[in-house]
Amino acid sequence: MERLLRKCQIRNQLVRECMAEFLGVYILILFGCGSVAQVTTTQDEKGQYLSINLGFALGVTFGVFVSRGVSGAHLNPAVSLSMCILGRHPWMKLPFYIFFQVFGAFVAAATVSLQYYDAIQMYSGGKLTVTGPTATAGIFCTYPADYLSVWGGVVDQVIGTAALLLCVLAIGDQRNSSLPDGLQPVLVGALVLVIGISMGSNSGYALNPARDFGPRLFTFIAGWGVDVFRAGGGWWWVPIVAPFVGAVLGTLIYELMIEVHHPPVPSELHTEDKKGLELDTLEPDF
Amino acid sequence: MERLLRKCQIRNQLVRECMAEFLGVYILILFGCGSVAQVTTTQDEKGQYLSINLGFALGVTFGVFVSRGVSGAHLNPAVSLSMCILGRHPWMKLPFYIFFQVFGAFVAAATVSLQYYDAIQMYSGGKLTVTGPTATAGIFCTYPADYLSVWGGVVDQVIGTAALLLCVLAIGDQRNSSLPDGLQPVLVGALVLVIGISMGSNSGYALNPARDFGPRLFTFIAGWGVDVFRAGGGWWWVPIVAPFVGAVLGTLIYELMIEVHHPPVPSELHTEDKKGLELDTLEPDF
Amino acid sequence: MERLLRKCQIRNQLVRECMAEFLGVYILILFGCGSVAQVTTTQDEKGQYLSINLGFALGVTFGVFVSRGVSGAHLNPAVSLSMCILGRHPWMKLPFYIFFQVFGAFVAAATVSLQYYDAIQMYSGGKLTVTGPTATAGIFCTYPADYLSVWGGVVDQVIGTAALLLCVLAIGDQRNSSLPDGLQPVLVGALVLVIGISMGSNSGYALNPARDFGPRLFTFIAGWGVDVFRAGGGWWWVPIVAPFVGAVLGTLIYELMIEVHHPPVPSELHTEDKKGLELDTLEPDF
Amino acid sequence: MERLLRKCQIRNQLVRECMAEFLGVYILILFGCGSVAQVTTTQDEKGQYLSINLGFALGVTFGVFVSRGVSGAHLNPAVSLSMCILGRHPWMKLPFYIFFQVFGAFVAAATVSLQYYDAIQMYSGGKLTVTGPTATAGIFCTYPADYLSVWGGVVDQVIGTAALLLCVLAIGDQRNSSLPDGLQPVLVGALVLVIGISMGSNSGYALNPARDFGPRLFTFIAGWGVDVFRAGGGWWWVPIVAPFVGAVLGTLIYELMIEVHHPPVPSELHTEDKKGLELDTLEPDF
Repeated sequence: MERLLRKCQIRNQLVRECMAEFLGVYILILFGCGSVAQVTTTQDEKGQYLSINLGFALGVTFGVFVSRGVSGAHLNPAVSLSMCILGRHPWMKLPFYIFFQVFGAFVAAATVSLQYYDAIQMYSGGKLTVTGPTATAGIFCTYPADYLSVWGGVVDQVIGTAALLLCVLAIGDQRNSSLPDGLQPVLVGALVLVIGISMGSNSGYALNPARDFGPRLFTFIAGWGVDVFRAGGGWWWVPIVAPFVGAVLGTLIYELMIEVHHPPVPSELHTEDKKGLELDTLEPDF
Repeated sequence: MERLLRKCQIRNQLVRECMAEFLGVYILILFGCGSVAQVTTTQDEKGQYLSINLGFALGVTFGVFVSRGVSGAHLNPAVSLSMCILGRHPWMKLPFYIFFQVFGAFVAAATVSLQYYDAIQMYSGGKLTVTGPTATAGIFCTYPADYLSVWGGVVDQVIGTAALLLCVLAIGDQRNSSLPDGLQPVLVGALVLVIGISMGSNSGYALNPARDFGPRLFTFIAGWGVDVFRAGGGWWWVPIVAPFVGAVLGTLIYELMIEVHHPPVPSELHTEDKKGLELDTLEPDF
Repeated sequence: MERLLRKCQIRNQLVRECMAEFLGVYILILFGCGSVAQVTTTQDEKGQYLSINLGFALGVTFGVFVSRGVSGAHLNPAVSLSMCILGRHPWMKLPFYIFFQVFGAFVAAATVSLQYYDAIQMYSGGKLTVTGPTATAGIFCTYPADYLSVWGGVVDQVIGTAALLLCVLAIGDQRNSSLPDGLQPVLVGALVLVIGISMGSNSGYALNPARDFGPRLFTFIAGWGVDVFRAGGGWWWVPIVAPFVGAVLGTLIYELMIEVHHPPVPSELHTEDKKGLELDTLEPDF
Repeated sequence: MERLLRKCQIRNQLVRECMAEFLGVYILILFGCGSVAQVTTTQDEKGQYLSINLGFALGVTFGVFVSRGVSGAHLNPAVSLSMCILGRHPWMKLPFYIFFQVFGAFVAAATVSLQYYDAIQMYSGGKLTVTGPTATAGIFCTYPADYLSVWGGVVDQVIGTAALLLCVLAIGDQRNSSLPDGLQPVLVGALVLVIGISMGSNSGYALNPARDFGPRLFTFIAGWGVDVFRAGGGWWWVPIVAPFVGAVLGTLIYELMIEVHHPPVPSELHTEDKKGLELDTLEPDF
């Protein structure tokens, strides 16, 4: 069997990375949106808001475990962009990463919809709606609270994604935290947990264009219709655009306040060149 | 005392492995089903659905700690099958492993029933029923939600077990995650937690033929009667058959999308032969 | 300042160990009983049963961190007894350990009573009762559920303590789990968490004669009166006697099913003698 | 980009430390007070008391990750004072640390207020009040429970901060716990969690003058008015003064009962001098 599997080996680095990003985001959304489906369709009987927070947190943790050795586990177009800006990821790969991140989220949403098919039918009475008492579109992508203005939503997503990137960079900065490398996925999950606990109520803490747009596209096609783009005053573009802004902001804050001021380590002089070569295979930032 | 204990030493590897699998599954079910018993008999006063998720998650963690150094901590016939298929476990041991896994779950269910004897008597008024307002059979094994079709249940169990195996392989794949070896049991527990949070409401996330069939057999004998096989439209075979299918599916997905494509490590050329010899004593997959 | 502190240095090993056990149990009860006080006096508004489980779990974790380097962090007379039986702790130290464990629990109960003085007065209307709607004795020590027979309570405590010891030995058995040494306190905490989640509702999972008797003695003296010994049909002796039985049982099960069968490690032949000498200063079992 | 960033490098150690303390406390309050805002403005629908405990716990964890390599991650004037008393931090830096800790908390409170602007407006009907049914001042700083006397509040804060320091010193004491260095931030977070679970209901476990005074100052300026100082019978000075007392008390207890009695390690004789020089750049206590 092992020999048979080995025959399927692909040596192209970019293809491997795209598969890893696809599978990582797939796991993230499978567990994340799955937890929302469980809470929604059981009407809080088998879960509450905290279990949704845990679902996305551990979804990220296992999504990172699945992909980090291969693609660096960005799992988020806003993270990929930041890595490119910092010069730790080649710009040329950016569109591939983004496409497969969105694609993974799309397929995962379809899987959740399949696994919860009977439950969603029972809960919604067969009507797939975006708003109203038995709305089920919120299982898949984010919608803002009634009170939230568009501007308030942009601010919410910018602050949330900035906090995400700032802490992700701190966790990965060996000259600051010295966290054992293998535990970074757990801490990134804990980070997503605390963001969900402290910044989740305004608009569902998407913080990730792929996490939001992939499943939204799925619901658009699968029967929830054009309302998924109309609801919340045309909310859909906010969790796509604002996270990019927030990611760059958070990256700059961490770099300018902490990382650039680290005194140079002696060994750095030697590894500098080597680093440049290795960067596109494995970023240490997650 | 220590000398006295040493006289009992058994050197037969297979006997040791069977005892370890027995004890590992015993701990898993003792904590897992114990948490359901606590929630059921106190009517959610001393626990809620999340505590059941935690009970099974930490039950798995400590079940793995108890057995991994000896048997590799499969604790699940579907995991054992996948290891055999991957060539990491000898087929000849498979029936022994499965028998002692089921046996451990059976004895653990009896222990939970003993520890909660007074509580179950009080809660059920002395009538051991499988359905109805004071049903207690759900403490021991899984039953599907009312809305779930058999086909929906099969899909649910296949997806759940595939996600389990996919992530278990990722956690154990040192070329991907580089998780410190001693922490794998904790992460496997976290994985069971997130599956319970995101895939638990349809049919109770058995994902493990031994976890479900051992306790079901116990309830059949101990007074709940033949209803344990009849309930849910003859549900009992689903958590036995579907996990095997899901486990193979998840294994294939991880292998084909990630593991087979890892570039060969130089040291591998040397250890290849050695590996073959060691495989039956200790798999690094958990 | 550091020099001033150094003048207070005590070199007597037993005195150091007694202080460490005192402080370790103090921390355990301070956080554990504190969490019960918070849940009781706020009538579940600022905590629920799960927070009590977490309070005792993390109480154990930090109690172990405070004392393990000095005394081995038994924190429980039943654990001390098991270590003596296994030959890993000198019998002569047993009474000292037990006395200071009980003493630490007593002083911690007094501290909780001080910190929650206003809250307990407000909640109970100034009447310190053991039973009834505003009973507060349950903040400090355990009482059985109404339905529980004495025999059922003994079984409950024996099973619980056996599970505790079995898993504690597994976590500390480097030939089985290979857990990083510094993480054992966290895992012991997780173990107490899962026991509270799966075995807490019958009689409050004391599992520890010191944890129960020290605070009970405090409530007897501090105004709750002789009812603390009378309630639950004279329950008080069960969490003292049964944990000793359970601890020995759990120890035997783990030793006979797992530990004695480990093949001897080559290096053991050399360290055997050395081990005998070091054993009384630091057990690796926690 | 990386070159551009490097041009901004600051080599002054004190400036770097002040920025790190600022950013660390900022993260702590952003997540901590954010979680209170979420619970308050959704009226417990998207969070409960436990999520506030988790918000502050993980807020501390990530605050420490952000700053520990640079400033030692005090994040609390009471911790800074204890370090000075123990001779592990220069007294001269104390006022700088305290100022930037308070400043970070102030700016973080402003950020939370910005992110939750729409939510607070909706929840409070636009009236920013300190007491009453739609009070929102409690999002930012602590107020005592109705039943609590001032003296009871002082005792509460002293015990809480003493427990905090005692355990923080234990976690950082390598001759006691031997916790992997990179995991200390996680354990400090768990410590804050258990304190919130067991000592939170009396007065909101500030335990940190900066955490309380910075946001209080913000609410005073931002529209809640002078009531933030008047409420709770002039409560505001208690979480400033009592934590200093508690911190010194907890430090002394740990030092006198555990740390000073450790036998000297051989290597200490050599590192003694070196230690004195390094102390002001990086304390190993967090």
